[in-house]
Amino acid sequence: MLNPKTPQQSEVTMTEMVLPNDTNTLNNLMGGRLLHWMDICAAIAAQKHSNRIVVTASVDNVSFTEPIRLGNIVTMKAVVTRAFNSSMEVHLQVWAEDIPAGKRVSTNSAFYTFVAVDQNGRPIEVPSLLPETEEEVALFDSALRRRQLRLVLAGRMKPTEAKELRSLFEIE
Amino acid sequence: MLNPKTPQQSEVTMTEMVLPNDTNTLNNLMGGRLLHWMDICAAIAAQKHSNRIVVTASVDNVSFTEPIRLGNIVTMKAVVTRAFNSSMEVHLQVWAEDIPAGKRVSTNSAFYTFVAVDQNGRPIEVPSLLPETEEEVALFDSALRRRQLRLVLAGRMKPTEAKELRSLFEIE
Amino acid sequence: MLNPKTPQQSEVTMTEMVLPNDTNTLNNLMGGRLLHWMDICAAIAAQKHSNRIVVTASVDNVSFTEPIRLGNIVTMKAVVTRAFNSSMEVHLQVWAEDIPAGKRVSTNSAFYTFVAVDQNGRPIEVPSLLPETEEEVALFDSALRRRQLRLVLAGRMKPTEAKELRSLFEIE
Amino acid sequence: MLNPKTPQQSEVTMTEMVLPNDTNTLNNLMGGRLLHWMDICAAIAAQKHSNRIVVTASVDNVSFTEPIRLGNIVTMKAVVTRAFNSSMEVHLQVWAEDIPAGKRVSTNSAFYTFVAVDQNGRPIEVPSLLPETEEEVALFDSALRRRQLRLVLAGRMKPTEAKELRSLFEIE
Amino acid sequence: MLNPKTPQQSEVTMTEMVLPNDTNTLNNLMGGRLLHWMDICAAIAAQKHSNRIVVTASVDNVSFTEPIRLGNIVTMKAVVTRAFNSSMEVHLQVWAEDIPAGKRVSTNSAFYTFVAVDQNGRPIEVPSLLPETEEEVALFDSALRRRQLRLVLAGRMKPTEAKELRSLFEIE
Amino acid sequence: MLNPKTPQQSEVTMTEMVLPNDTNTLNNLMGGRLLHWMDICAAIAAQKHSNRIVVTASVDNVSFTEPIRLGNIVTMKAVVTRAFNSSMEVHLQVWAEDIPAGKRVSTNSAFYTFVAVDQNGRPIEVPSLLPETEEEVALFDSALRRRQLRLVLAGRMKPTEAKELRSLFEIE
Repeated sequence: MLNPKTPQQSEVTMTEMVLPNDTNTLNNLMGGRLLHWMDICAAIAAQKHSNRIVVTASVDNVSFTEPIRLGNIVTMKAVVTRAFNSSMEVHLQVWAEDIPAGKRVSTNSAFYTFVAVDQNGRPIEVPSLLPETEEEVALFDSALRRRQLRLVLAGRMKPTEAKELRSLFEIE
Repeated sequence: MLNPKTPQQSEVTMTEMVLPNDTNTLNNLMGGRLLHWMDICAAIAAQKHSNRIVVTASVDNVSFTEPIRLGNIVTMKAVVTRAFNSSMEVHLQVWAEDIPAGKRVSTNSAFYTFVAVDQNGRPIEVPSLLPETEEEVALFDSALRRRQLRLVLAGRMKPTEAKELRSLFEIE
Repeated sequence: MLNPKTPQQSEVTMTEMVLPNDTNTLNNLMGGRLLHWMDICAAIAAQKHSNRIVVTASVDNVSFTEPIRLGNIVTMKAVVTRAFNSSMEVHLQVWAEDIPAGKRVSTNSAFYTFVAVDQNGRPIEVPSLLPETEEEVALFDSALRRRQLRLVLAGRMKPTEAKELRSLFEIE
Repeated sequence: MLNPKTPQQSEVTMTEMVLPNDTNTLNNLMGGRLLHWMDICAAIAAQKHSNRIVVTASVDNVSFTEPIRLGNIVTMKAVVTRAFNSSMEVHLQVWAEDIPAGKRVSTNSAFYTFVAVDQNGRPIEVPSLLPETEEEVALFDSALRRRQLRLVLAGRMKPTEAKELRSLFEIE
Repeated sequence: MLNPKTPQQSEVTMTEMVLPNDTNTLNNLMGGRLLHWMDICAAIAAQKHSNRIVVTASVDNVSFTEPIRLGNIVTMKAVVTRAFNSSMEVHLQVWAEDIPAGKRVSTNSAFYTFVAVDQNGRPIEVPSLLPETEEEVALFDSALRRRQLRLVLAGRMKPTEAKELRSLFEIE
Repeated sequence: MLNPKTPQQSEVTMTEMVLPNDTNTLNNLMGGRLLHWMDICAAIAAQKHSNRIVVTASVDNVSFTEPIRLGNIVTMKAVVTRAFNSSMEVHLQVWAEDIPAGKRVSTNSAFYTFVAVDQNGRPIEVPSLLPETEEEVALFDSALRRRQLRLVLAGRMKPTEAKELRSLFEIE
């Protein structure tokens, strides 16, 4: 069995400058480009946790509330929050910074999941995760509920069987 | 008040060829690149419905189950399913085709939401949607439930208030 | 011998959004970028007809009369018009749309030809084409004249031997 | 009236290395990418002749006979062959080189036409061309015939009126 | 006068995944692509120190000794080492990681200099730097010598006047 | 032993148009993008001299003094100045041209070095260089001094041993 790893061992920081081709006609970063960057950043975290090639399994609901402008610096921080056999959940936080204006805002947070695969693309076991800080433990615990939501939304689990998720709606 | 529009008026088809830079070291399309293409395709549908500049408001949970290979043709079809004041929900279907092998698979479906904005980036009213076919009516009706899930996940609605969503868990 | 195919079986629609890097200093789409997109769109149609890898053999004279602007949506429709042994002629129609302005114009039409090849890059037979509608028959018939023009321009046929082409100039 | 210019004054050489994203699944340069590079190279020649912003007006028939491989060096040479009021015809020659193999082949030649425009995109007069060498004079003379072919193909001239072009078919 | 800043306030980490188009025919990262990434990373550090738009003034000698492979993760860390009126020297360290192989190597270190400019592109004063750790002090001190080398190499200082630099050769 | 070659045999000219994604928020070409183009141009010159795959070994100090604007044409000329066993020094000259304004400025000159490698990436012998013109001889002679500076800066030669370089500082 593989040695467990801490969240810290998978942490990765990625920085991008918003260039003209990343923006719409209002000079704001397009949502799809940000999802693309987030996928690469999260994939690197999952690679670091598993020391394997990883493929994206899913992205959870992501909201875009703050416009990010041409020339802004986008910083992403990704960390593995929990591992399930061959899959890993990764938590992402995103900030946008207008440096000349001295303004930095938190723009997004998201969860991506990845599956570790061997050279033939077959799923392969990954180390389990050992959360250490209070925040890491909270993310580790809630990962179960998010996983059930993913399975329900993908039609692979009946809503009535999603115990942890149901508790969210104050049932039982 | 704006004249309502049918789903057909916003339908858009987009086709992409998977090039080397879109792939990981297993020669499979990276999930983030697909999310990027889907965002552009869905944005065009929302533009066609609203005749406005649109910005991505959110993407719902997306699962990636089928690997898409280098050289494959990816076809996306987007259509507006419902409008709420200044926002629109767009349904996307994605197929990947290995033409020389004569193989075509459905790889993804997803919901993106967009907000129509004026030249200063402020939200502006959009036409309502008039579903026509049975399938369009079903998507229109379920849009309410998906909207509640988005609001709950974004922390902008209490789970106990999400009536339509709760019905999913056979409560009440 | 391979079963003939209809034009409909090869039809493909491609949509692109004009981004900053696609434009010149007047913010208009550069002609070469459009030729590039048209080549990919037409290649997919030829792939669909032949179920083979295809390589571009030629592009006929293309005129650019309407400027296409930054932020416009470009829609291309490609369909195979006739097959000759291992080569296929593809007809392309291009529209540009300024959606917020509610303006859509036909900007280009063009003919590309492709050769189907095997894994070693050697030409290989493709199905013949069975035109069905009146328009498809007209394109099928005139394909012969265009082919002669291509051969004459490539120095592979003498102008005096190009019978169908000569008729254009009211000779004989 | 503007001072005439020689072809030499507009000559431009452009070099590109074929990278993975420029190639199809056979590792050959895609035709559309080459058309894109040729357009940029030819546009620079037209800019040098006119000292104006230029927009692509048309590209003549281009044939692709030699496969160009990943890693090859593509060299393009463009020169203005004749000017007509606000438009210029540009001749392009293309070579591909596999340097480690010591192999260099001529792969394409083509004619692009450009229109010089002012800051508002309106056509504006350009200098006339003064051909000097024998080859330059031949290209200058045959430009008239190619122009008629362009006008006929664009439906802007009747074939029966295209005098120079008709002579190609040994009429009159 | 502007308040001095510490190196820590300008530190930035950037992460890139080596994609096919970044590599040569041996599947190794091209040196020029790395120089491009390093420039962006260093520019962000200089922006953070100055809260200004910055333009690259120079890059010092950079050696490439370790091949970086397709699929590797490149991590860059940039920090301002010293400020001179409107210019800043930035130190960069680069690592390449083959995560599945569990191999991480230091591949490069470099110095870039930037000039802070106002909206019209004119140089503008930046805060001075207050080094704190022993390493930061060493980089701060040696910055003078590197600056003299830059001025000598740019022909803007006579070698005989480059006092600090001369001491390197044990003169005086 | 390989036949020596002249500088002329490796000369290469590369031309690029500055597109939006190449520029910063002041619409000036980013230094890193230029370093990337220069690397490709210089690599082609080294390939032509050696008829081998080449990898970048180092770039010498490069200064950026002239802003290069969006829409400008950048012309680079590269030529091998001297060969040492498996490595080659390449001299680059760069000009930027605002053609509509009729303004052309010399913006940079630089030295890159490359190593020729075989298919396994191992260094392999290259032809020696035979300078012909006065300027070529001067560049050939001074190459030794630049090489010593590179070795000193890379920590692979003691400053006190760099004879040619020391003469620059009027020692001995």
